[in-house]
Amino acid sequence: MTATLTNQPAAATGQHQWVYLFHEGNAGMRNLLGGKGAGLAEMSNAGLPVPPGFTITTEACNSYYDNHKQFPPAMWEQAMAALKTVEQETGKKLGNAANPLLVSVRSGSRVSMPGMMDTVLNLGLNAETLHGLIKQTSNERFGYDAYRRFIQMFAKIVLGIEASKFEQILEAKKHAMNAKADTDLNSADLQDVVTQYKALVKQETGKDFPEDPLQQLRLAIEAVFESWHNKRAVDYRKFNSIPDTYGTAVSVVSMVFGNMGDDSGTGVAFTRDPNTGEKALYAEYLTNAQGEDVVAGIRTPKKIAELQRQMPEVYQQFADIAQKLELHYRDAQDLEFTVERGKLYMLQTRSAKRTGVAAVKIAVDMANEGLITQEEALQRVEPTQVYQLLLPRLDPKEVAKAHQNGQFLTKGLNASPGAASGLAVFDADSAAERGANGEKVILVRPETNPDDVHGMIGAQGVLTARGGATSHAAVVARGMGKPCVAGAEDIKVDPEQRRFTVNGVTVKDGEQITIDGTTGEVFKGKIAVIDAQFDEQSELGQLLRWADQTRKLGVWANADYPRDAERAVKFGAEGIGLCRTEHMFFEEERLPIVRQMIMSAAPATALDNKLTRSQVELDKADENKQATAQQRRDDVQAEMTASAEHKLYYDALNKLQEFQRGDFYGILKAMHGKPVVIRLLDPPLHEFLPSYDELLVEQTELRVRGKHGKRLEEVDRLLKVVEGLKEQNPMLGLRGCRLDILYPAIYEMQVRAMMQAAAQLKREGVDVRPEIMIPLVGTAKELQIVREQLIPIVEQTLKDEATKVSYKFGTMIEIPRAALVAGEIAEYAEFFSFGTNDLTQMTFGYSRDDAEGKFLLQYVERGVLPVNPFQTLDRAGVGQLVKMAVEAGRAARPGLKVGICGEHGGDPDSIEFCNAVGLDYVSCSPFRVPIARLAAAQAVLAAVERDK
Amino acid sequence: MTATLTNQPAAATGQHQWVYLFHEGNAGMRNLLGGKGAGLAEMSNAGLPVPPGFTITTEACNSYYDNHKQFPPAMWEQAMAALKTVEQETGKKLGNAANPLLVSVRSGSRVSMPGMMDTVLNLGLNAETLHGLIKQTSNERFGYDAYRRFIQMFAKIVLGIEASKFEQILEAKKHAMNAKADTDLNSADLQDVVTQYKALVKQETGKDFPEDPLQQLRLAIEAVFESWHNKRAVDYRKFNSIPDTYGTAVSVVSMVFGNMGDDSGTGVAFTRDPNTGEKALYAEYLTNAQGEDVVAGIRTPKKIAELQRQMPEVYQQFADIAQKLELHYRDAQDLEFTVERGKLYMLQTRSAKRTGVAAVKIAVDMANEGLITQEEALQRVEPTQVYQLLLPRLDPKEVAKAHQNGQFLTKGLNASPGAASGLAVFDADSAAERGANGEKVILVRPETNPDDVHGMIGAQGVLTARGGATSHAAVVARGMGKPCVAGAEDIKVDPEQRRFTVNGVTVKDGEQITIDGTTGEVFKGKIAVIDAQFDEQSELGQLLRWADQTRKLGVWANADYPRDAERAVKFGAEGIGLCRTEHMFFEEERLPIVRQMIMSAAPATALDNKLTRSQVELDKADENKQATAQQRRDDVQAEMTASAEHKLYYDALNKLQEFQRGDFYGILKAMHGKPVVIRLLDPPLHEFLPSYDELLVEQTELRVRGKHGKRLEEVDRLLKVVEGLKEQNPMLGLRGCRLDILYPAIYEMQVRAMMQAAAQLKREGVDVRPEIMIPLVGTAKELQIVREQLIPIVEQTLKDEATKVSYKFGTMIEIPRAALVAGEIAEYAEFFSFGTNDLTQMTFGYSRDDAEGKFLLQYVERGVLPVNPFQTLDRAGVGQLVKMAVEAGRAARPGLKVGICGEHGGDPDSIEFCNAVGLDYVSCSPFRVPIARLAAAQAVLAAVERDK
Repeated sequence: MTATLTNQPAAATGQHQWVYLFHEGNAGMRNLLGGKGAGLAEMSNAGLPVPPGFTITTEACNSYYDNHKQFPPAMWEQAMAALKTVEQETGKKLGNAANPLLVSVRSGSRVSMPGMMDTVLNLGLNAETLHGLIKQTSNERFGYDAYRRFIQMFAKIVLGIEASKFEQILEAKKHAMNAKADTDLNSADLQDVVTQYKALVKQETGKDFPEDPLQQLRLAIEAVFESWHNKRAVDYRKFNSIPDTYGTAVSVVSMVFGNMGDDSGTGVAFTRDPNTGEKALYAEYLTNAQGEDVVAGIRTPKKIAELQRQMPEVYQQFADIAQKLELHYRDAQDLEFTVERGKLYMLQTRSAKRTGVAAVKIAVDMANEGLITQEEALQRVEPTQVYQLLLPRLDPKEVAKAHQNGQFLTKGLNASPGAASGLAVFDADSAAERGANGEKVILVRPETNPDDVHGMIGAQGVLTARGGATSHAAVVARGMGKPCVAGAEDIKVDPEQRRFTVNGVTVKDGEQITIDGTTGEVFKGKIAVIDAQFDEQSELGQLLRWADQTRKLGVWANADYPRDAERAVKFGAEGIGLCRTEHMFFEEERLPIVRQMIMSAAPATALDNKLTRSQVELDKADENKQATAQQRRDDVQAEMTASAEHKLYYDALNKLQEFQRGDFYGILKAMHGKPVVIRLLDPPLHEFLPSYDELLVEQTELRVRGKHGKRLEEVDRLLKVVEGLKEQNPMLGLRGCRLDILYPAIYEMQVRAMMQAAAQLKREGVDVRPEIMIPLVGTAKELQIVREQLIPIVEQTLKDEATKVSYKFGTMIEIPRAALVAGEIAEYAEFFSFGTNDLTQMTFGYSRDDAEGKFLLQYVERGVLPVNPFQTLDRAGVGQLVKMAVEAGRAARPGLKVGICGEHGGDPDSIEFCNAVGLDYVSCSPFRVPIARLAAAQAVLAAVERDK
Repeated sequence: MTATLTNQPAAATGQHQWVYLFHEGNAGMRNLLGGKGAGLAEMSNAGLPVPPGFTITTEACNSYYDNHKQFPPAMWEQAMAALKTVEQETGKKLGNAANPLLVSVRSGSRVSMPGMMDTVLNLGLNAETLHGLIKQTSNERFGYDAYRRFIQMFAKIVLGIEASKFEQILEAKKHAMNAKADTDLNSADLQDVVTQYKALVKQETGKDFPEDPLQQLRLAIEAVFESWHNKRAVDYRKFNSIPDTYGTAVSVVSMVFGNMGDDSGTGVAFTRDPNTGEKALYAEYLTNAQGEDVVAGIRTPKKIAELQRQMPEVYQQFADIAQKLELHYRDAQDLEFTVERGKLYMLQTRSAKRTGVAAVKIAVDMANEGLITQEEALQRVEPTQVYQLLLPRLDPKEVAKAHQNGQFLTKGLNASPGAASGLAVFDADSAAERGANGEKVILVRPETNPDDVHGMIGAQGVLTARGGATSHAAVVARGMGKPCVAGAEDIKVDPEQRRFTVNGVTVKDGEQITIDGTTGEVFKGKIAVIDAQFDEQSELGQLLRWADQTRKLGVWANADYPRDAERAVKFGAEGIGLCRTEHMFFEEERLPIVRQMIMSAAPATALDNKLTRSQVELDKADENKQATAQQRRDDVQAEMTASAEHKLYYDALNKLQEFQRGDFYGILKAMHGKPVVIRLLDPPLHEFLPSYDELLVEQTELRVRGKHGKRLEEVDRLLKVVEGLKEQNPMLGLRGCRLDILYPAIYEMQVRAMMQAAAQLKREGVDVRPEIMIPLVGTAKELQIVREQLIPIVEQTLKDEATKVSYKFGTMIEIPRAALVAGEIAEYAEFFSFGTNDLTQMTFGYSRDDAEGKFLLQYVERGVLPVNPFQTLDRAGVGQLVKMAVEAGRAARPGLKVGICGEHGGDPDSIEFCNAVGLDYVSCSPFRVPIARLAAAQAVLAAVERDK
């Protein structure tokens, strides 16, 4: 009642309301009051014990910045009015020497930015109110301790004086008094500390410490506003795509004290275990301490059992409140509370941060408990958390052991998830070289820069002493999918001496270390890494089954071998969206045959063409030219029969056909009942031949040494072929269907092998669904030619095998032009599969091999690109092409099946796009199938939300 | 009257009319009656002396093919009715022994396909009618001559017997009779020839020569229909994009005879000189000869003066008719006529084929004469004819001399225009090798195939014995813009012996020959080639001025040097649309400096960045961290000052800036008053360094030889840099604006030099209009960064120079993504210039360097692609992107200036597209500016036609 009255002036005069008492707010006002303010308001209205206070809105913060860093008009007056209400509610008064009100001034945005902004406690203390506090509490030591804490915090946050300078004074005092802990200092000691603190402030700022509590309050509010734009906060927002315009609210809360004796204390709690998701109050408590001691980790807190033992009633009250809040918010809560002389106060409630494991378990449990719906459960888990679950991680038992026997070195920023052990190396060249030699190394640097990228490529993981979540090391490592711990500031890296030291331990070049990019922890020695287990019966399995019921997109996998296909099925894949046949060509026993095939392809095909031409001429010849034409054709036939190269070519192809039949047999069998999209040979032929440079060096060596033997002849011959096939830009050269149009026998061999395998399996009772996919199509005519070439061979093979197999014929859409003329192409394709890797390369004009090392990661680091477009599909460019192609393709051929098989098929943001443009399925690496299942479900739910 | 009556049954019974008497047709019925039929009808109705006859429609031909090669119902009956009318008009009767009607049966489609289809003359002769003919003409020799001609022609065309077999009989007879010319054979000789001919027919076909004139007629009509699908005709249509569905008409014309004695004769005439365009009757006449003798070139015709002398009245009648026809058709006509016993008959009129020179002169003259409008004049000249005018050509005087002194060897197909002299070589490897050594060679082959492409690249031109306008040699040579004479069938090429023979002359490997791809002529020896002259006062100049009044597109030129710019202006260029700065870097004196710049770019820029970072940290530092930050910054500054590489880099850039200032001064001065778009450095840096392979070989050699001296050190160092810059796909690598974002000092140097030059010229009174163009932009952010980097430097430079210069800032659109997000990019660009070379490369996924040699020309040859997309813009794919970008760009920035600077800017078909999508200008090589001016005007006129 009082509150309403007090604030009436603002509303009554038509003033904009910048300040809300806790009673005036609720959880729905998160955007205006920040997460903390809204939480306090909600708890307050729910009748929970919350210290009285008020919140200055995020609008006020924005107005402050819009208005040359001036408080908006009337804000201060509204705050003063609200303060009056708080004073009435608490019966205390700010600056009153007899009965002083102390307050905390806290930051809080609409989204949690943990630790990024500032908070001031115990505000309102000065030489006079200190004595009131001491009188109130009858505890002089407590009073001086509160005062010295306040000075230190205010000096750091508001006045910008380094905290370490205050710590030095405190440490010196402890040393002088032979005190082990802060609590060993007595009242007189602390009084001296306060005097020294004040002198330090005077020395650093040239002014006395501000004594006026209202001035303190004004400065603290300004400082919290200012902290919205400190570097840490700006970087964090940039990295997490949080707009600057959100602003921070400022909550002014009357102080309660957990350090008023053994009937006081403070704690933090999670309503469920944030590491495992276990349904149990997971809390820590410190007797006779302030909240900052817990949060800052200065004193090691005890389990909540301590509170239960000391004050069972208070414990029970807290446990009830915790349960009530979880039910109220329908999510696991992260709570802060204080007990002041046996009375419980709730200081914060917010949604609890949690590990991937916990996120999955909490979501599934809560849905099973009926607390949330299955759809909500699906939305509670980030697909990247599922990714964490499936990444190799450190064996928790070994980690526990490592902590026990002192292997733990430090904790830095968990900049890129995953874990790795390796030998510490201190420069990029060594990392690259030793990595190339098969050694597992961790690159350790003060910070990384673009010159280090080759070293990062060679290393298992990266550890840096400097830099945050958006530092070079962090961005690049995430880009590479390698674990990274960044900004481990305790570490001193000495690249010259090739070593680092941390907390007295020195690690030298070549010594084993382990980093956990998921937690940020760094260990000495090797810690066993365990592969993730995926069990359909687990909570994750349950969650993904719900996802399957929700999602519209099919989830397929890219797999080239039966073992990969089997893993994919285990992870829930509904088909193989990309089986690359080229990898099969590289196997050791086949490579010589492949090379024989390539070396003879051009001359053999020239003869084939010559024969075809002479046959055409013969068929067309007038009667009187028939004899000549017949003779000519016979001559070509004889030339062909005599040609060694022609024989070598077809011998090689016949051998390869046997191998390929086995390959296709395996993968089709593994995918019993599910479609398998087999892409015919794609890369340029020279990829299968020895490297040009190596041959050139060998040739030069043999020549200079005068060794004109057989090997030189062979090298000469090889070099000539490799040179003939060499291209300036092989990515844009003779490969994919272009190869087929020039050398048709290779694809013909492949489809023959495919259909022989399919027919055999069919006879064995296996349900086979092969789909023939043609790569690198850019014009409808190409696909028409290839189709008209291959389909008769497919049909003939099946006829020879006397078996019917249903199959599909389709194409990759990976060339920009193919997307632009997709309507024409659809005439010859029963399905499209977007090869967004190549499509991204050509749409951006980026050669991925070159770009990632040379400029792309720098582009992302410097914000030229928001993300690496090879990881997350570029909607504006590449996505536009995809959308156009889907629409034109479906218009030309209703029922056209459309999928994606680029790496984007496993990226949640890209999956949302695929859902939005109506693809039939995404195909990704087997490992990412669970992520894709969840992301596909979330895409549906997000679309429903948007359409509401 | 009779005619109408005769034909009434068809119309009256509601029958479809398949046959039209000449009286029934007119010039407007070209599609139905073919060019020849419509011309005869038109002349007939104009009261000109045309032998009576009728035309069977193209519809009948199509029906014939649709109907399993059966005449459509009633067609034959209608033809018989028309024949009756012709018999009435001539007073003769087909097959009547006393007074026989003879007819010619002629092909003719709606578009001229010269020599592609067949014609039969003298049809109706047999043993009986022969005697009637002899009696009618009182000339036995004439009768037998007509008969033997008919048998030979009918046998060849209708019965498919080779003409050479008949020639052998005739030659043998002449030999036996000691006759020099055909005319030396007397009646008895010819009677014997006829007997032998008939025996040959019996022997070849197993049947007697058909005696029934109606059967002859039916067979001849079928044969003409059949000739629509002979290989020559099909190839010709395919090459000229003439649909198969046009069909051929068949005209049946009563015979008149030019070989009835000295009061008879036959001739062909052009109303204007088809070579020069001179307004004068250009005609040839043969006394006592049949038309085929002229057309086939069997006898050398005389000038028309002969007719004038012999029969002045007939000549005058003909001259009047010729003039009347030209006026009637409002175009130069190609006429065929026959004089039979002093009476003139017109046999054909059609638009005259003409050379480029003649086309221009005739069009301009006719417009000046008031015969046609200027717009029509513009439409009468093909842009490719202007191209011919501007190509180097053989000096006509030298050609005349060559003809006189027996250097002329043969004439083949004019497969690709232009002329070239060179040494004859007989295999592709030699051509490639000798071409690479700087020798000028002509590749001579029986025919070419894809294995010969490297030889074609090395050669100045190509000569083949086999193959037509769509043969490999023809397609590939046109693709390369090299002259080619194909299908020179008289030539016997012997690649083994490395020589060819033609008409008794042998040309050996290494002997000089000359080919003229514009005429198809081949000469022995070298003939001087002259460059084209362009004179604004010439007819071409006049035509192009008219074009300038009509066209909407600006025509600019691509030029890198002042001399090219000057030539472009002379050709009418209104601006420079692309000045490439990289060519300037390659000049001999600069290359070492460029290399110095490149070798030091990475370390120098790393230091620059380090300094910037430390300065930022210093600026941001809290008071208490200032000292440390200042120290750090000073350390970096010291490191930079001490760095040799940093000094080398900026020294090199300063030197280059001086050179560039001179470059820009020259080109801006040459383009006084006109815009000059200067593209900043585009290629990857390694293009300026020595080749990796050469360095690798040298390093290996030095190493193996144990020469560990200074040179090896240098090679090692160079190789390391080149290796660092080497890319898998340089086209898609670190170049263009990407380079600038990594190494900003280079572009900064370039704009500084540009503005210094502009300021200096401005002070000298020159009107300078520089436009800064950024290459390889793919995202708006890139252009924003580069703009925000360079504009302040431009402004600062102009401030330093104390001069105002108006300039523009814009970008290439050459990456597919740039076209897709052009709306965003337009925010930072005042102009777009479509770089359709790169845009085509990336949209198709073709590396031009690789594709043209490896598969692209084969794609065109085999019809996978209709044309080479690097020559003619691909509307469906690349064009779609261009259109999208223009629309989005203009929507975002009204008034955005949009041009094209790829090679397509000089291609007429592409120019039509550019006009249609509303570009502001096209920019092409200076040489093609006149073509572009004409094509741009034609595009406007074509659009007007379409909109009518």
